[in-house]
Amino acid sequence: MPSISDKGKRMPASPIRKLVPYAEQASASGMKIYHLNIGQPDIPTPVEMLDAVHNIDFKVLEYSHSAGNESYRRKLATYYRHNGIEVEHTDLIVTTGGSEAITFGMMSCLDADDEIIIPEPFYANYNGFATAGNINVVPITASIESGFALPPISEFEKLITPKTKAIMICNPNNPTGYLYSLIELEALRDLVVKHDLFLFADEVYREFCYDGQKHTSILSIDGMEQNAIVIDSISKRYSACGARIGALVTRNKEVIATAMKFAQARLSPPTIEQIAAEAAVDVPDSYFEEVLERYTKRRDVLIEGLNNIPGVYCPNPGGAFYAVAKLPIDDSDVFCQWMLEEFNYDGKTVMMAPATGFYATHGLGKQEVRIAYVLKREDLIDALHVLEKALEVYPGRVEVEQEVLEAK
Amino acid sequence: MPSISDKGKRMPASPIRKLVPYAEQASASGMKIYHLNIGQPDIPTPVEMLDAVHNIDFKVLEYSHSAGNESYRRKLATYYRHNGIEVEHTDLIVTTGGSEAITFGMMSCLDADDEIIIPEPFYANYNGFATAGNINVVPITASIESGFALPPISEFEKLITPKTKAIMICNPNNPTGYLYSLIELEALRDLVVKHDLFLFADEVYREFCYDGQKHTSILSIDGMEQNAIVIDSISKRYSACGARIGALVTRNKEVIATAMKFAQARLSPPTIEQIAAEAAVDVPDSYFEEVLERYTKRRDVLIEGLNNIPGVYCPNPGGAFYAVAKLPIDDSDVFCQWMLEEFNYDGKTVMMAPATGFYATHGLGKQEVRIAYVLKREDLIDALHVLEKALEVYPGRVEVEQEVLEAK
Repeated sequence: MPSISDKGKRMPASPIRKLVPYAEQASASGMKIYHLNIGQPDIPTPVEMLDAVHNIDFKVLEYSHSAGNESYRRKLATYYRHNGIEVEHTDLIVTTGGSEAITFGMMSCLDADDEIIIPEPFYANYNGFATAGNINVVPITASIESGFALPPISEFEKLITPKTKAIMICNPNNPTGYLYSLIELEALRDLVVKHDLFLFADEVYREFCYDGQKHTSILSIDGMEQNAIVIDSISKRYSACGARIGALVTRNKEVIATAMKFAQARLSPPTIEQIAAEAAVDVPDSYFEEVLERYTKRRDVLIEGLNNIPGVYCPNPGGAFYAVAKLPIDDSDVFCQWMLEEFNYDGKTVMMAPATGFYATHGLGKQEVRIAYVLKREDLIDALHVLEKALEVYPGRVEVEQEVLEAK
Repeated sequence: MPSISDKGKRMPASPIRKLVPYAEQASASGMKIYHLNIGQPDIPTPVEMLDAVHNIDFKVLEYSHSAGNESYRRKLATYYRHNGIEVEHTDLIVTTGGSEAITFGMMSCLDADDEIIIPEPFYANYNGFATAGNINVVPITASIESGFALPPISEFEKLITPKTKAIMICNPNNPTGYLYSLIELEALRDLVVKHDLFLFADEVYREFCYDGQKHTSILSIDGMEQNAIVIDSISKRYSACGARIGALVTRNKEVIATAMKFAQARLSPPTIEQIAAEAAVDVPDSYFEEVLERYTKRRDVLIEGLNNIPGVYCPNPGGAFYAVAKLPIDDSDVFCQWMLEEFNYDGKTVMMAPATGFYATHGLGKQEVRIAYVLKREDLIDALHVLEKALEVYPGRVEVEQEVLEAK
C-alpha cells in the first residue's frame, strides 16, 4: 500500500472541528448543546443576497474570470472606498473564501522553509495553510493579562531572521477579539518597511468593532503600499459563510500578478455565490448597525457573565465575535471533551474550542478556551449558567493565578 | 520592496488563458472570434439544477460540512454506483471543483521533490498544482501517430525512481480526447501495484465517450483499491463549470483522512452550488444521450473538416470534447497569436490553444494546437473554413512530416 506524504501526516487536524464526533454522540443521546465553539453566525443573510440567487436567469452556469467577475470586482472596489480603503478593481482578486486568499498570498510571497511571524493565539487554520506550503509559522505570544494586545515590537525584532518573509495579523482578532490600534499598526508598518517584509492582515471582521471604535485597514496606512496584503471574506460580514467568497487585496502589482497565476490554475471562484456577493455590496449601512447592536449586547452579557463566575477571567474584546477566557481547569482539551462526554446540567451542556489549538507554542492555552458569541442572549445566559455548574464539579480544577484574576 | 517567492516566479501562467488579452483586443476592433480555445460548453445547464437554486429557502447561508453536505455525499455515491463504481459516501470528499481535488490529492500523497509521472500532452494546470506543492512532474510522451494512446509500460518503468510516488492520467483525456482502454488501465494497475504507487485518474469527462465505447473508472478495476484515486467534477458533466463542485474519491481510508485535514483547513465547499449539484444527480440519462449525440456530430464535423484541410492531421478522439491537431506551422504559440493579431478572413478569426503548454518536455507541441468543439455545428464549419484560409497565408508555414499525414 502506498504511503501518504509527510506533509499530510504533519497537517494539523482542525482544533475547532475535532470535538465534533463527541458532540454528535452527546446530541444523539438527547443532550442539548450550546455551540460556543464555532463562528457560524445566526444572523440572517441579507435578503438582497438571497433574492439575487432566486433571480438568476442564465441558462449556462459558466466559469467566471479567474480574478472574479469584473462587475463584482468593480463593485467590491466601491465597498472598499466606502470604507476608506482607496483601491481599484485591479488591486484585488476574488477568491474562494478568505481561506484561498491566505493560500494565494502565502504561496505568492513565501517559499518552503521561509518564516512568517504571527501573534498567538491565532486562527488555527493559518497553521494548515502554512503546512501546505512547507512554511514555518513563528509564534509571538500575546498575553491575556494585556487583553491580547500586540506584543512589543522589540520582541518581534528578536524573532526576525534571514528566513522571515512576512508578519501576519488578524484584525479584529480571531480568537481573542482584540482590535489593534492605529499606533500598533503604524509600529508594524515601520517594522515591515525596515526589514522589507510583507504584512498580511486578515480583516474579515472589519465591521465588527464595538464601543464606537473604528477599524483601520493596513491598506489605509501610508508608507507600506508594497508590503500590505489584505485577506478578506464576505462570510462573517453578511452572515454568508457558505458562499466561500473572499478576496486578496493589495497595491503590490507583482503580488497580484503572481497570485493571478495560482488563480488561473484553479480556473475561477463560484459563479452563483459571486452574484450574491455583488448584491451584498448594496446592503445598507443600517444592516451593520443593527447587527453591531445585537453583538454588542451579546458580548456584554457574555463577558460580564464569564467574569462573574468564580475563578474565571475574560478580557473585554473590542471586535469580532470571539473571546478567549481563562478558566480554572487543568487542560482545556480534556475539559472541553469532558463537557461533551461526561457532564450535563439539566440535560444541557456547552461546546467550546480549547485554546491550545490556537497557540503554536506547545503547552500554551491549557487554561484557556475560545468562545464565539453567535447565539441569542437568552441562550448565552443559560450557557454561562451551565458552564458555571460544570466548573464547580470538574475534577481537574486548577485555579487561575491571582494576578490574572485581579485584572477583572 | 519585499520580493515574491521563487515558487510564485516558477508558477506557470495558464497557456489556455494567456492569449486572452490579444483576443480582447481583436474583439474590441470588431473581429468575430470563434473560440475553440476553451472547454466552456454551450449546452444548457439542466433545469433541475437551476430550479434548485431558484428554490433555496434557508435564511442563513451557512458553512457545509468540510467533506460536503452529507445529503449530497450520499446522493453522489448513488451516482457512482449507477455508473458501476461501488463506493460509499464515506469514500469521497466534495471539493471546490476538480482543481481542489487535485490539490488535496497531490498534497496528501506527495511531498516536495517527489515525482509524478504524467503522459503528455496533459491538462496544463496539473503543472500549476504540482508547482504549488514543489512536486516534480515527469512527462512521458504520447504520440499523435498512435492517436495519443498510453505509452508502453516499459517506457514508464524507465522513469520510475525512488522519488516516484504516483502516476496520473486523464480519461477521457484533455487535451487529446483519447479514451484509455481496459487493457491499458489494467497494465497501469499492474504497474502501480508492482511499484507501490498511487494512480490518479481525472475522470471529469466520464460521460463523454463516443462510438458506443464505454468508460472504465480506475475504481472499477479490482486489485488497486489502495492505489486508485479519482478526481471528479460536475463542471463538464452538467455544463456547470461555474459551480466549482468536484470530488476526491478513493477507497484508501488513509488518503481520505489526510485529505480531510486539508478540507477542514479551508472549511467547506460552496453551499448553494452543492444544492444544485445534489439536484443534478436526478438528471435523467436521456440528458446525456442528447448531449452525446450533439457532441458526436460536432466531433465528426471537426475531425473530418480538419483532415480535409491540406497538410493537417488530427486523430479521431474517442471521448471528451477536445482534439489535438497537427498543423503545417512553425510554432503554435506564434501562430495562435498571429491568428488574433494579424489575420482575419471576412472579419472573422479562430482562437485555439497552442499545444506547447500541454507538454512538459520543452520543444514539443510546436506544430500542434488543442481544439475544443463546444460550438454549434455551423460555427465549427465556418471556423474550419477560416482556419484553412489562415494556413494558406501564414508566413511561418512548415509542412507536417509525410508519415504523419499518411495516417489520415
